This record gives sequence, C-alpha cells and structure tokens, in this order.
Amino acid sequence: MNRIAQIINSAQLEDNDALVIFNEVNVTYLSGFTGHAATLLITKHATVLITDYRYVEQAEAEVDGIKVLCRYRQEHSLGELLDIVLNEHNIKQLYFESDHISAHQWQVLAAELSVQKTIPSVGLTESLRYTKTPQEVDLIRQAAHIADDALAMVLNDIREGVTERELTTELEYQMAKLGSQEISFQTILLFGARAAMPHGVPGNRRLCHGDFILIDFGAVVQGYHSDMTRTYVFGKADEKQKMVYDTVLKAQLAAIEAVEVGVSGEFVHQQAENILCQSPFAEYRSKGLGHGLGMDVHEQPFMMPGCDQKLDNGYVVTIEPGIYIPGWGGVRIEDDVALMDNQLQILNKTAKDQFEL
Amino acid sequence: MNRIAQIINSAQLEDNDALVIFNEVNVTYLSGFTGHAATLLITKHATVLITDYRYVEQAEAEVDGIKVLCRYRQEHSLGELLDIVLNEHNIKQLYFESDHISAHQWQVLAAELSVQKTIPSVGLTESLRYTKTPQEVDLIRQAAHIADDALAMVLNDIREGVTERELTTELEYQMAKLGSQEISFQTILLFGARAAMPHGVPGNRRLCHGDFILIDFGAVVQGYHSDMTRTYVFGKADEKQKMVYDTVLKAQLAAIEAVEVGVSGEFVHQQAENILCQSPFAEYRSKGLGHGLGMDVHEQPFMMPGCDQKLDNGYVVTIEPGIYIPGWGGVRIEDDVALMDNQLQILNKTAKDQFEL
Repeated sequence: MNRIAQIINSAQLEDNDALVIFNEVNVTYLSGFTGHAATLLITKHATVLITDYRYVEQAEAEVDGIKVLCRYRQEHSLGELLDIVLNEHNIKQLYFESDHISAHQWQVLAAELSVQKTIPSVGLTESLRYTKTPQEVDLIRQAAHIADDALAMVLNDIREGVTERELTTELEYQMAKLGSQEISFQTILLFGARAAMPHGVPGNRRLCHGDFILIDFGAVVQGYHSDMTRTYVFGKADEKQKMVYDTVLKAQLAAIEAVEVGVSGEFVHQQAENILCQSPFAEYRSKGLGHGLGMDVHEQPFMMPGCDQKLDNGYVVTIEPGIYIPGWGGVRIEDDVALMDNQLQILNKTAKDQFEL
Repeated sequence: MNRIAQIINSAQLEDNDALVIFNEVNVTYLSGFTGHAATLLITKHATVLITDYRYVEQAEAEVDGIKVLCRYRQEHSLGELLDIVLNEHNIKQLYFESDHISAHQWQVLAAELSVQKTIPSVGLTESLRYTKTPQEVDLIRQAAHIADDALAMVLNDIREGVTERELTTELEYQMAKLGSQEISFQTILLFGARAAMPHGVPGNRRLCHGDFILIDFGAVVQGYHSDMTRTYVFGKADEKQKMVYDTVLKAQLAAIEAVEVGVSGEFVHQQAENILCQSPFAEYRSKGLGHGLGMDVHEQPFMMPGCDQKLDNGYVVTIEPGIYIPGWGGVRIEDDVALMDNQLQILNKTAKDQFEL
C-alpha cells in the first residue's frame, strides 16, 4: 500500500472527506515532492498538490498519480484555490493539520472555505512516519556513516589550542564533502567544563590537555537525519572523568540492550536510570534518554518518563544518557538504534571504549 | 527608548493589558535572550521571560530588567504558568502573536487561560525591526563582507570539472572559517542552463567552459543575515550572455539609484522593470525585485508590485533583478542596500563589472 493509500486509511476518509497537509516534511513524505511552497490535498479518489510557478516543473517530475496545480498569487489566494478544488470534489468535511499552520493563517484560510465542517487533525502523517522501511533505515545509516567518517578525520588532526568553533567548522566541512546535504542540527561541540551544558553553542574556548571534548552532531542524506554524541578526554583522563564516563557508558549499553519490539520508551529510559541513579553522580543525570529519528531529527517516540508507546519494527531511536556536572564538565554518549525484523541494529560505528585522545 | 518600551508604546498597552511573544527571533530582538524555548510576556509595568531549566542561567546572564521564570514540565504546562503570571499582574486583555503559534497550540494554550479577552496580533515586533540602528546595519555589513571574502577565495581557485555541490561546500566552509555562525539560507549555486532556476539546489553538474555560474548566498553575524548574488561566465562570454548580463546590471543599478527615503518598494521595483521590459528578454524577467534583510533573511519591506510601504532611514533591503531563460541560463545580480542619514550605502563590495572568469 502506498503512503497516500495508507493515510486515507488511517484518517478513515469517506467519499466527501478531504485531508489537507501543510507541513513541508509531511508533503514530501506523502507525495515525493522535495521542493517548497506546497499544499497537499488528499481525498478518497484524488490527490492534488498546489504549488507556485517556481516549483511546478519539479513537482510534475517528482510526483506520481497526483495532480499538480499551479497557483498564481495575483489570481487566487491559497484559500480561494483550495475552495475551488474542494467544491470540484464535492467535499463536505475537511481535516487539516492544525499543528502545522499558524493560528493567523488558519483564520484567514478558513474564512475563504465554503466547506461545511473543518476538523483539526494532529500527528496523522507523523504516526505513519514512525515505522521506517529498510530503504529509509538505510538512508539514516548512510547519514550516520558520513558522521562517523567525518569525526574520524577531524579527531585524527586534533591539536591543543584549537577552538570549539574551528573544530565544528572542520567537522561540518568534512560531512559536506562526504555528501551530507546539510547539518542535521546545530552542532554541539564543547570543551572542558563547558561540556556540562547539554545545549551549549560552540565558542572561542581553546582546547587544553585534560579537557573533555563533547561532540553531538549529525548528517542528512535525502532528507534523513543522523544524530550521534561522543565524549573524549584530550590526553589522559583523571579518575573522576573515568568514573563518569564508565557510568554513562554502562547506562547507555543497558538501555540499548533493552530496546526490543513491545517495550515502551519509558521502560528503555528506566534501564539507564537504574544505573545512573545508583552512581555517585545521580543528581547530575540527564532527564530524557532519547527520541525517534528520521525526516525530522526529533520525532516520536520519545524515551522518557510517561512515554508508554511501544517500540516496533521499523522504529529508529537515539539512546543518549548523560551526566552533566556544572563547573566541572559532562559526558554524553549517543547512538542511533533501529529495530528491523525483531533485531536491533546500531547504525553508527564510532567506537565508545577508547575515550582518551 | 529601549525596545520593550517601544513595543509597549506601539501596542498601546494599558494597565491591564499584556502582549505575549512566541517567535524566537522576536524574543531575542526584544529581550536580548539568544537561547531557545522561551516565551516573553510584556505588560506596561513588568516583563517576564519563561524558559526551562536548560536555558535559565543563560537567560539570567543575557537579559536586563526582565524577570526570568523557569518552567518545570512536570509542574506546569505553558498555559498554566502563563495564567498564574497573568493573574498576578491583573491582566484582563491579552494580545498574542497569532502568526507565530500553531492553531493547535493556541487552542490548547487558550483553554488554560482565565483572562477575559485574547486578541490576535500580527507583525507588531516585525514593524519595529524594519528600522535598524547603526549597530545592526554594521552586523549585516560584517556578514556581507564575510560573504565577499569567501567568494573571492573560492573564485580564485575555481577549475573546470568542479561540481556545483563541491563549490558550495568550499564557499560555505570559507564563510564559517571567516566567522559566519551559520549559512544565511540554503546556498543557490548553479552552472550553465541550470542558472535559469531561481531556486535551484546545487547538484552534481560539473563546470564547463562557457557556463554561467550563478551564486546566491549569505553569512550570519550575531543573528544578522547577508544575501548577495553574483553571476559569472566561466571563460569568454558569448554575445547573448553579455547582452543579458548588461541588461540585468543596468536594471539593478537603476533600482539602487532609486532607493531613497520616502519612495515605495513598488517604485523601486518599477525602475528595474522599466529596463527589463524594454529589453528583448522581457518575458524572462524576475517577478519581484527584493526584500528587507535583518534578523530574518526575508523581512518586510518587499520591493514588488503592490508594496506601497515607504522606505525610511534604517531600512536594509536587497536589490536583485534577474533574467531566467529556461534551457539556456540565467543572470541575477543582488546587493544589500542600507538607508542611513538619507544616504544610500551598499553593504557588500564584490565587483559587478567583471563577469568573465
């Protein structure tokens, strides 16, 4: 069943129903169109993609079995054109992605529609996106391997005195050269005590002997994201650094071990919690363990307290426990893990046992 | 008058009114806070920034005269905490940025508020942001100069057979090394006939003699964006290439000449139109001439038909006419132009008269 058929099914669309998709990633997922400025209208009997003159040619080349409509700004607002299409298809009830249109835009758009009823819809396409095909997992793996290879090159060349910013620039450059279409998210690359900031921004801090180097980064291949964290010590680690590193690694391995079909995100989180809480660093432990990964870098399902959604085949999630001690430093270790045919696969390959550089 | 005072003034807030800001760039502009996950509440007598544990320290260090509140997810939803603060300040009427919150989020949030009246508000902070201070213009200029210098380095090294993607990677790498915090937008770098696509994505096309090279790109310094386009011919240009280039350059110079305090965006656009329409390439001309530039790469005011907003001191806009001939190629030339003290300043410095490489 193709994705359009799947969503008609999961939205339970009837003859006089339609679903309108505003989110760009969801439009790409459902239609195959990779440009911008598109709105996708799905009915039980036809699918229409509305875009503008800049993207019409590209849309016609990329989509299959979908009618492409070009909207000219001078002739129609989006609402006017949508209304014409809805009337043509005799639509009475319209589901819309209420989490992907601003309150203002929806107010303007809704005022131009003559449809009898509009119904907010949240997370419908996203819930299809949880389950990846082998091809999708392979794209995430390709992105993960680009990150692995770029990191190896950069670490090979690392020297005292380099700044966080400079090292970030080199890492992102190597990923681009290896084929990453963009960075997966803003790289977090921090030295020394700054590694205690889970969301710090690389700055002008220079690398010194004995520093932590925390690197959280990823690549993108055909729209699919990778996300990996490694933490190193530049030179010899002291006893406390070793203890913290060992604790986080043990927690990460225990959580990965727990990933299987049918367990909840909360359960996986709890396996890391058990180890972090028993350590002397319990108060400094991370609050969430991980997240789904795919066309967005943060997707459902989350590995956190209260996440009772069960993992299933085709799910790809990150496992990233950490310990962050303000003023001292921090350690986070993160891998991307896929469930395929009831088997767990770790998509990245950078070693975790050797953390002294 | 500081920015908070300005917005209280332009929103005409009374004693029992408040304005809530959801947009991250607007929060930064008004408060100085550069992190994420923040909501800003402004009343006539107090300003409150709500963020979470990850950003509290940073917020307290960055803001001045603003109370920072930490929201703990387990304790309060954003709506619950906002409601407490609104009640503490005896707010009866709440203006909200309806174009910067999704219809779904607003529905959830509004249901948790006990305030008597909520009023959608669009473009309030943005209208303050049109007018840049000399310091803001200087940041855009710094970003423009990074782009100038990176381009010079990359062109110096250009060779037959390089791909669009490879050249893009080098250009973005040089900008990062020169201090750009990120790319201003996805670089458009296209060879040959592909230069006819105003929004093409760099691919694996290799550079040949006689090709157009169209490069549209920018840098970011402290959140301020630059945006420049140059078009070259690799080797000797033929007669048609020269004619198209000369036409676009003449149109661009005429439009820049027209930029002054008191004229509308439409008027500036019209000056380029006059030249493009009289040329043999009229049917292939660009549809819009330019846009405002600042903390967003596309801001008000636009230089297009129907834009009657008058330019003023402190405005920074792009001037970027083009001619795009499908299957043959295209030329776009773009500069960033500031109006300061009734004087026009061109912020970038890359030459336009020498287009054969």
